[in-house]
Amino acid sequence: MKETILSLEKGAMERWRKGDPWGFIEIYAPDVTYFDTGTPQRLNGLGALRAELAQREGKIHYDVMEFIASRIQVQENAAVLTYRFFSTQLNPDGSISNRIPWNCSEVYVRMDGQWRIVHNHWSYIKGERI
Amino acid sequence: MKETILSLEKGAMERWRKGDPWGFIEIYAPDVTYFDTGTPQRLNGLGALRAELAQREGKIHYDVMEFIASRIQVQENAAVLTYRFFSTQLNPDGSISNRIPWNCSEVYVRMDGQWRIVHNHWSYIKGERI
Repeated sequence: MKETILSLEKGAMERWRKGDPWGFIEIYAPDVTYFDTGTPQRLNGLGALRAELAQREGKIHYDVMEFIASRIQVQENAAVLTYRFFSTQLNPDGSISNRIPWNCSEVYVRMDGQWRIVHNHWSYIKGERI
Repeated sequence: MKETILSLEKGAMERWRKGDPWGFIEIYAPDVTYFDTGTPQRLNGLGALRAELAQREGKIHYDVMEFIASRIQVQENAAVLTYRFFSTQLNPDGSISNRIPWNCSEVYVRMDGQWRIVHNHWSYIKGERI
């Protein structure tokens, strides 16, 4: 179960870093709720997520993803996945251009045999972008 | 059930705003995980939370709490509570001295008939303190 959830997450993140947000849309639940640093209010429901992420399509690109200390807490058909995350852009010479440190929380629920994200919260570690 | 969870949350927050973090310690689960803007890493487990919050005891005071658009998503014995929150300090004349805008996520799980928080994530709305 833990491997399944991590695999879903990393697959969606791999698409995300290349500017494709639709991997997450495929695994968000219909009633998903969402906070991140770009949202002035919580987004409620898959329709709201789809509208928001459509605006970001093609605009997000980074070269290196680091998942740090990922942890899954399991409770019957629900699981809380948390990790720190660094999204890093590189210069042509391979040096670091930009690195953003994130805290990530995801709540997965098993629905009809499929794990779906019902809540997602992204924030800057220590409340700062750098 | 939703009333029970909101009541637990608001009771703990009422103590928190007066510098008393122990209301939360009473309702965190043994394996709670925690992110906020003061923590460089995720805190894992009640012992880590107790150590961190002991350092904050008596240092947090604000006059007005605003819970905005609280929402509870229920899944059997688990529930995700999310809200925006403004913590506000007032000047002696009643004008606003300081207001911090927060996103809050809490995952509650029912254990032996008691609701306990297994995950908590606090961040600044739009990634900014002000």
